[in-house]
Amino acid sequence: MEAWLKKTAGPGAERDTVAKPTIEDTDVLVEVKAASICGTDVHIFEWDDWAAGRIKPPLIIGHEMSGEIIKVGSRVKHLQKGDMVSAETHIVDQTCLQCLTGREHVCRNMTILGVDRAGVFAEYVAIPAHNAWKNDPDLDPRVAAIQEPLGNAVHTLLPRGNVEDIAGRNVAVIGMGPIGLMAVAAAKELGAAKVFATAGGRNKTRMQLAEKMGADHVFSAREEGRDAIVSAIRNATDGNGVDVAVEMSGHPDGLVTCFESLTAGGRVGLLGVFPKPFEVDINRLMIFKAATIYGISGRLMYRTWYQVRGLLSRPQFQKKISQVITHTLPIKDIEKGFDLILTKKAAKVALTPDW
Amino acid sequence: MEAWLKKTAGPGAERDTVAKPTIEDTDVLVEVKAASICGTDVHIFEWDDWAAGRIKPPLIIGHEMSGEIIKVGSRVKHLQKGDMVSAETHIVDQTCLQCLTGREHVCRNMTILGVDRAGVFAEYVAIPAHNAWKNDPDLDPRVAAIQEPLGNAVHTLLPRGNVEDIAGRNVAVIGMGPIGLMAVAAAKELGAAKVFATAGGRNKTRMQLAEKMGADHVFSAREEGRDAIVSAIRNATDGNGVDVAVEMSGHPDGLVTCFESLTAGGRVGLLGVFPKPFEVDINRLMIFKAATIYGISGRLMYRTWYQVRGLLSRPQFQKKISQVITHTLPIKDIEKGFDLILTKKAAKVALTPDW
Amino acid sequence: MEAWLKKTAGPGAERDTVAKPTIEDTDVLVEVKAASICGTDVHIFEWDDWAAGRIKPPLIIGHEMSGEIIKVGSRVKHLQKGDMVSAETHIVDQTCLQCLTGREHVCRNMTILGVDRAGVFAEYVAIPAHNAWKNDPDLDPRVAAIQEPLGNAVHTLLPRGNVEDIAGRNVAVIGMGPIGLMAVAAAKELGAAKVFATAGGRNKTRMQLAEKMGADHVFSAREEGRDAIVSAIRNATDGNGVDVAVEMSGHPDGLVTCFESLTAGGRVGLLGVFPKPFEVDINRLMIFKAATIYGISGRLMYRTWYQVRGLLSRPQFQKKISQVITHTLPIKDIEKGFDLILTKKAAKVALTPDW
Amino acid sequence: MEAWLKKTAGPGAERDTVAKPTIEDTDVLVEVKAASICGTDVHIFEWDDWAAGRIKPPLIIGHEMSGEIIKVGSRVKHLQKGDMVSAETHIVDQTCLQCLTGREHVCRNMTILGVDRAGVFAEYVAIPAHNAWKNDPDLDPRVAAIQEPLGNAVHTLLPRGNVEDIAGRNVAVIGMGPIGLMAVAAAKELGAAKVFATAGGRNKTRMQLAEKMGADHVFSAREEGRDAIVSAIRNATDGNGVDVAVEMSGHPDGLVTCFESLTAGGRVGLLGVFPKPFEVDINRLMIFKAATIYGISGRLMYRTWYQVRGLLSRPQFQKKISQVITHTLPIKDIEKGFDLILTKKAAKVALTPDW
Repeated sequence: MEAWLKKTAGPGAERDTVAKPTIEDTDVLVEVKAASICGTDVHIFEWDDWAAGRIKPPLIIGHEMSGEIIKVGSRVKHLQKGDMVSAETHIVDQTCLQCLTGREHVCRNMTILGVDRAGVFAEYVAIPAHNAWKNDPDLDPRVAAIQEPLGNAVHTLLPRGNVEDIAGRNVAVIGMGPIGLMAVAAAKELGAAKVFATAGGRNKTRMQLAEKMGADHVFSAREEGRDAIVSAIRNATDGNGVDVAVEMSGHPDGLVTCFESLTAGGRVGLLGVFPKPFEVDINRLMIFKAATIYGISGRLMYRTWYQVRGLLSRPQFQKKISQVITHTLPIKDIEKGFDLILTKKAAKVALTPDW
Repeated sequence: MEAWLKKTAGPGAERDTVAKPTIEDTDVLVEVKAASICGTDVHIFEWDDWAAGRIKPPLIIGHEMSGEIIKVGSRVKHLQKGDMVSAETHIVDQTCLQCLTGREHVCRNMTILGVDRAGVFAEYVAIPAHNAWKNDPDLDPRVAAIQEPLGNAVHTLLPRGNVEDIAGRNVAVIGMGPIGLMAVAAAKELGAAKVFATAGGRNKTRMQLAEKMGADHVFSAREEGRDAIVSAIRNATDGNGVDVAVEMSGHPDGLVTCFESLTAGGRVGLLGVFPKPFEVDINRLMIFKAATIYGISGRLMYRTWYQVRGLLSRPQFQKKISQVITHTLPIKDIEKGFDLILTKKAAKVALTPDW
Repeated sequence: MEAWLKKTAGPGAERDTVAKPTIEDTDVLVEVKAASICGTDVHIFEWDDWAAGRIKPPLIIGHEMSGEIIKVGSRVKHLQKGDMVSAETHIVDQTCLQCLTGREHVCRNMTILGVDRAGVFAEYVAIPAHNAWKNDPDLDPRVAAIQEPLGNAVHTLLPRGNVEDIAGRNVAVIGMGPIGLMAVAAAKELGAAKVFATAGGRNKTRMQLAEKMGADHVFSAREEGRDAIVSAIRNATDGNGVDVAVEMSGHPDGLVTCFESLTAGGRVGLLGVFPKPFEVDINRLMIFKAATIYGISGRLMYRTWYQVRGLLSRPQFQKKISQVITHTLPIKDIEKGFDLILTKKAAKVALTPDW
Repeated sequence: MEAWLKKTAGPGAERDTVAKPTIEDTDVLVEVKAASICGTDVHIFEWDDWAAGRIKPPLIIGHEMSGEIIKVGSRVKHLQKGDMVSAETHIVDQTCLQCLTGREHVCRNMTILGVDRAGVFAEYVAIPAHNAWKNDPDLDPRVAAIQEPLGNAVHTLLPRGNVEDIAGRNVAVIGMGPIGLMAVAAAKELGAAKVFATAGGRNKTRMQLAEKMGADHVFSAREEGRDAIVSAIRNATDGNGVDVAVEMSGHPDGLVTCFESLTAGGRVGLLGVFPKPFEVDINRLMIFKAATIYGISGRLMYRTWYQVRGLLSRPQFQKKISQVITHTLPIKDIEKGFDLILTKKAAKVALTPDW
């Protein structure tokens, strides 16, 4: 079959013909119908320090995907040939403390598609049946593919599945990458009062998308500066600040904006990954504010997926989310997709199985 | 001033001229701009057993209200003349176990406006400043008045303030009185996937309103019967049943519908009051289903109010909720309002201060 | 091997020699080192209506067990020969809504050891590796066997795993069967302030055991009557009532005692199974009290087991719990064990593998 | 009356005779029966940067206190002359967002006894009735005085009142100041499995006290170093790390120890205040670990106080906590008390009203 691989340590990706995967009897074999490019794929493509330390070439890359099951392992009873599925990309052991206490998403022995084992930028991929999420057959395969990052957005807003809500609360979303954009849409869909969005501001595309997602106020971090943004948020919330702030920019300044915009006793979700450690005023930001802070990694398996399914069953939400996909390319042109992301021209890039 | 009173034990209400209330230094005096009729008022009007046991005539009746502050007690610092406010109708002691642990709404020494002390079907009413909820001055006074039952609806859906959510979940609302209708609207606004509504079915008005509120499926309890409704709900949820069911009909059959429609491990909110004790299969409905059940009384003071404020700041929600007010009458015609409710012609009746 | 079976529909059990079980490659084969008798076993032994409707003879009975793994299925990686294990008795599909959202204990397709498939009153038993809970090798096999009902007690006290606490709160435990006794011990171990215990009162043994478990006040339901008990509990809690009440008697009167003893806004766990439906005043008990009610079935897989392990690592708690085992018999005398329970002479009866 | 004051900006405190306080009609006047010295008092005594920026001399210092009510404001109904009370030291407005949503402890307009208004190192103190916590009259006044920091310890362990537990979990307490010591005792009292304690290690007193509090493992941060401690904690928890870690040292190294000792998906409470901002690896410590982090300020008003009352009703716990008071001095010798703390000879110093 055709696939995009990291063949050797270093930047870039190569297309090649490789053997079609075989499956274990607890796996399913999926024909990829749509894939999409994640920020992690960009790091692997560019071969940054993290990628150099983690990836063992040769490896088929990519992890966001939807497709059709074409073969089912003999022990798999709840799925069948022809089912349309998306991949939960975290493969877990189901036996460790985390897996046995509702925290499979941080399994002690996790492997990740396209990072630790063969990924989805290929014609076919084999995944454990436990990782195949069955979709409504009518769901657009591209939207089905981005349910995985949409799950990140929803999980960041509702970090414990059912021990938080957004209802009628004011929310700040810091960083308008694809997940930030989806978090704006999700917060509004979940009944948020006002949603404040900040974009890096190098161009206007992300700010316009944030408005389409339903943000009530959109700020440019670059042009307006942190103090003015915090001040505007406080003014728009009776001086209280927001009830919930989520960090999706990966900038130290974004972290501070989150906490400075937050009302005392509010909560923060941290999803954006920072380039390196930096000086933090833990007293002022976290302790004196009596903040609750959730470090976010992955999605709840599968509470978040059920919530995502429920939200996508709402037509206006599905339509909004599809707008985060600003570009759709044949997968043979994947390098153009990486370029669109690196030059900040695209939000989410979807790939069709045209080789 | 003019007021509607229960002057003697027995059915009905009388209009009379009474002294304008005086205020304590921790009170505010409010000029009523809109009031609305609650089911409790109907019980008092009709003088049922509960009313006969609780109400001590003479008493000004009514508790759902919004108005303008015209006088502020000397110790009240956070409110001023001219503020538009609604009444939280539960007057609490602020010193008991419940008040000191986030459960003021079930204070050990609670008194209720229009039940235990002078109510709001009058030109003016005195209330403790702690019970005056400041509104956006642009909010329609009639919608402002029904925030109190709207708070019941929201609290039933989110019983612990922030320890539950509705996001992407399937929800059944049993009973399409005003609070049931508002619960349908609120569930959709909070991101529910499918919302199932059942109305008693004596006429079609409530079913049509349920559709306007956004219900995905509306059932007539009378015409379709419980088994068919439960079956339809299960079929529409992959056989799982709903994640959340709320009982707002006050019928024993409604209680059973809630639990039979519920997925194992789901949760139920009980708001509707039943006419008398009845036989319940606690094993099958509650225990074997591992259900979580919330008895609902009042609203959280003031978590729910903040949530209601946030939700009403969303224009489409405010518009939906205003449709629950099917009739607006001058308060001098209040008896006509009771009649509209008793004959099931009205959902919520609002009253303007036209004496 | 030797085993106790229900060979035909009707009361009693028969000892017989049957084939040693074979295992699937995801199973483990366990040599039983200790078993214990549950109330459910008594129902099966007596052949009540529930048993007649559910059990399909011939069937090896029993489900509470600990033992040593003597054979490991080829796909099982986290367990090995020689490991000492207890059985989680609920066998789940790991693919349904419940299993995928942290509620495996109410799986849609559950089967139960000794009820729906071969049980543990035998020399050997085959169980899925997912159901084998690895014990500290030094743990008394009899205490290891009763971790399953101990888990019921802990789960009733902490129904959502980590969304409740008992710390410094007043607790009522209604019903002093083995699980009620263990609930008293667990509540005290978890930092409860006062623990009130009610026993049926036919003899003094249970009341004395309740005291040994650490109950601060022990009542006899038969001798003192419900009103006096509720009154005593209220007096001992500044008139507030308890914060948490758990129903473990299976008597309608026990249910009422729970709610009447409860403070407004408190919570109730329902574990005891009632003989049949009965009249309940839902308004007064649940709604007006704004109670939170948890129907309890099984234990959280495996949050509760981890908590039980942690608690049993505390020497004084392990010692207390072992006192609930009032009788230890060779399994060949199991009929004597049933008799001790039916005549209320025993609390928990443990069985050693002496055939 | 006699009192200790900060009379001018700068180190130290002066004793003086000042006017006996008068009370508002919502206050009570309390005769101090015991006081105790908090770390905050030491900062004020030494006049560090924080103190210089916050304190406006002249001011009576001190805030941890218990005493007898000798006068009751005319509007106070739930307290009376002769009641023994402790002070909740946070005086709140009861009208802001925080106060109206169960977060009074982070009120927008908070003032603190002995910091922003007259404190308790005096013969008498006037406090709002809302801040007077009624004690069991038999409670040792010195233990009654330290309920306030004990509340900090309990609130750090149970940050949301009833949305967390400690039951059967492994816990690390970093820092063995008085609150750290009390946190060890509280964690064991709440059913923790293993409790790991780290002390700074300058002398052995704190380590011995940690053992008396019930710690299962006590480490010296100075002698053993962070890596060895983390390693030892992981080895003692099957490689998982602890479920809960609380930072009570105020050292950057303590923060890292908390997160490195933590199991993925675990939770951290941050109470210790750090001397200044420092470099933090947010990715590794918080995000990739999917940690839940609670910034802790004060105690829940009054959920935590009720829990503290319940715990102190357990004789063995009250005895343990009293051992944290290593020194009791007449208040006239308060300067000796400060010296004992500054030289690390004392844990908690209690003061008797001997002038």
